[in-house]
Amino acid sequence: MAEQLNAEIKLTRGVPPMEALPCQAVAHHIERLLAEHGPRLLQYQPSIGFAPLRAYLAEQAGCTADEVIVGNGSLQLLALWASACLRPGDTVVVERPTYDRALTTLRQAGLRIEGVPLTPEGPDVDALRRMMERTQPVALYTIPDFQNPTGITAEVSVRREVARLAREHLFHIVEDIPYRQLRYAGEEIPTYREILPERTIQLSSFSKLLAPGLRVGWMVASTEIIRRVARLAEDTYITPALLGQGVCYAFAASGELELIIDHLKGLYRPRLRAMLTGLACHLPQASWTNPKGGFFVGLTLPEGVVAEEFAAAAAAHGVQLTDSRGFFPDGHCGGFVRLPFCALSEPEIEEALVRLAQAVAQVTRKGR
Amino acid sequence: MAEQLNAEIKLTRGVPPMEALPCQAVAHHIERLLAEHGPRLLQYQPSIGFAPLRAYLAEQAGCTADEVIVGNGSLQLLALWASACLRPGDTVVVERPTYDRALTTLRQAGLRIEGVPLTPEGPDVDALRRMMERTQPVALYTIPDFQNPTGITAEVSVRREVARLAREHLFHIVEDIPYRQLRYAGEEIPTYREILPERTIQLSSFSKLLAPGLRVGWMVASTEIIRRVARLAEDTYITPALLGQGVCYAFAASGELELIIDHLKGLYRPRLRAMLTGLACHLPQASWTNPKGGFFVGLTLPEGVVAEEFAAAAAAHGVQLTDSRGFFPDGHCGGFVRLPFCALSEPEIEEALVRLAQAVAQVTRKGR
Repeated sequence: MAEQLNAEIKLTRGVPPMEALPCQAVAHHIERLLAEHGPRLLQYQPSIGFAPLRAYLAEQAGCTADEVIVGNGSLQLLALWASACLRPGDTVVVERPTYDRALTTLRQAGLRIEGVPLTPEGPDVDALRRMMERTQPVALYTIPDFQNPTGITAEVSVRREVARLAREHLFHIVEDIPYRQLRYAGEEIPTYREILPERTIQLSSFSKLLAPGLRVGWMVASTEIIRRVARLAEDTYITPALLGQGVCYAFAASGELELIIDHLKGLYRPRLRAMLTGLACHLPQASWTNPKGGFFVGLTLPEGVVAEEFAAAAAAHGVQLTDSRGFFPDGHCGGFVRLPFCALSEPEIEEALVRLAQAVAQVTRKGR
Repeated sequence: MAEQLNAEIKLTRGVPPMEALPCQAVAHHIERLLAEHGPRLLQYQPSIGFAPLRAYLAEQAGCTADEVIVGNGSLQLLALWASACLRPGDTVVVERPTYDRALTTLRQAGLRIEGVPLTPEGPDVDALRRMMERTQPVALYTIPDFQNPTGITAEVSVRREVARLAREHLFHIVEDIPYRQLRYAGEEIPTYREILPERTIQLSSFSKLLAPGLRVGWMVASTEIIRRVARLAEDTYITPALLGQGVCYAFAASGELELIIDHLKGLYRPRLRAMLTGLACHLPQASWTNPKGGFFVGLTLPEGVVAEEFAAAAAAHGVQLTDSRGFFPDGHCGGFVRLPFCALSEPEIEEALVRLAQAVAQVTRKGR
């Protein structure tokens, strides 16, 4: 362990820890799966995905299978939606900060991006309302549960206000909820899809629940949107990768997925606690969010400390951070730093924070 | 069988027959694979693909692993290449006719498409040379071996002439060779990559050798092109679906792939023979290509019979055909019909041709 703690610590991407990947169980399921569904998993299939998994997800979402498409991860479904349903130049609002890869994807579709500030309660509704006076967004892209990169969960009152604005100003809400099932405390809050089904496009994924390498994400939306996305998916990759979809179906249908999620919560909950108590101990002069689940804590550095300079100092102290500028539509990240906690052990988290405190001290000294 | 022969016969997509899909062998390989490479297959990985498979493909191609990317099927790699390396409005030359999905993909990238006539020896080199006088294509997309939809293989002299034009006029050759290893007669002809490596982008796939549902295709090109495609792949789907890549690697590395290809040749060779002898027997007034491998025979209907009208008559006689217009950049398909033979048994092929002869008779009668 001592040796490990001298090594560089990666506080970069939001990746599950290696020990959380159910290798043996995947092998076990695949054998039965191929015996039962073999040709269906190995042949070309409709671009909309493996039928039993779609049926399962539709049941979970309380909709019909026509309202579900399963693809090679949710990010690509976002890209397909943006190309199939929007036009270059259309405006999409994102939270500020937001998931860096989603920003890249939306930009690649030629969209105009506007950022709405994110408060500890969710998107700043007043700011969003004022935005409506000068721009007509076609959609809001939001991560309402344990947001990436802040860990913030939007309160139900905020969701209702946002939904009201969407109804009034005729924009869609794209809610990306890959972390939703990883709640370590508190009670579930209704999804946008539950609040405003007719204007919500829901994205989720098995990457954080089973394994990212399976590349299985899904979208729940109106049949018209799913039809358009499926047509572009067919023109792009004909059929999604099916073995991973079969594996996800086997875990879900057997009830094993529930057990794995419980196991992951047991693994991640103390890591979140270690991060929060470590922050209070080592970085009392900073502030941070108070997530109830997910992968990330959002750190705001002490007044006057800039994230870019801090990241360089952290690297010199052996902690690798993600470039914070990527989370902001305008690239201005101020003192924001994303702290992913799931892939590190508790001693690693403690050690990372000791080093980050040294980095803060170094940058603060220099600043004087 | 009698009942089956009354059913509609699908002469539509180029799909392997269900009995050719190695379900049990896939299950067998996956167990060992996950024991050995589990976390690597289940975790996020570089967008360039599963390292052992890339190393294997590089060895086969006689290049370095930096010159190989493995993705979710070769069609999407074509799409990524078109977006990452070309600009909307660039001209790409395709064979006339060509693979309908590739046409859709190139169009989606905003490219101008020019068609070069395809002769029984390959692309019409004189026409291609004349084309250079009025247009500056950035690439030629070609399927040199057992072409889709004609079954034609470009002769080596034609390939050398095309390569000379590419060198002289500075365009790239994108050679798509998913059928190359399914040769039923004759000898291998050098690939464009062997003739002109510095200007060739090679695409291939395990879809026709193992199983389409695995969604594993690859590209061999310069490190610079691979780097660009990989970056866009990361922005599009982060990591390709890895289980399928692991399976393909296991089949290839164990030598089992070779055995499967031999088995497929044994299965498909008599089907091609049945198609060719059936055509001579039932449609002597038409003409057709003489493929030495692959999935397709290209049929040219008797003078005056138009493919669209013929397809409708064929459907009325219980044979479903692909819309021929999709194979032609300008949509003018004349009397061309694609006949895929791999997914049908010999009696089904015979029956299909009996019905097609009836359809020809019907359309010819009407035309008088």
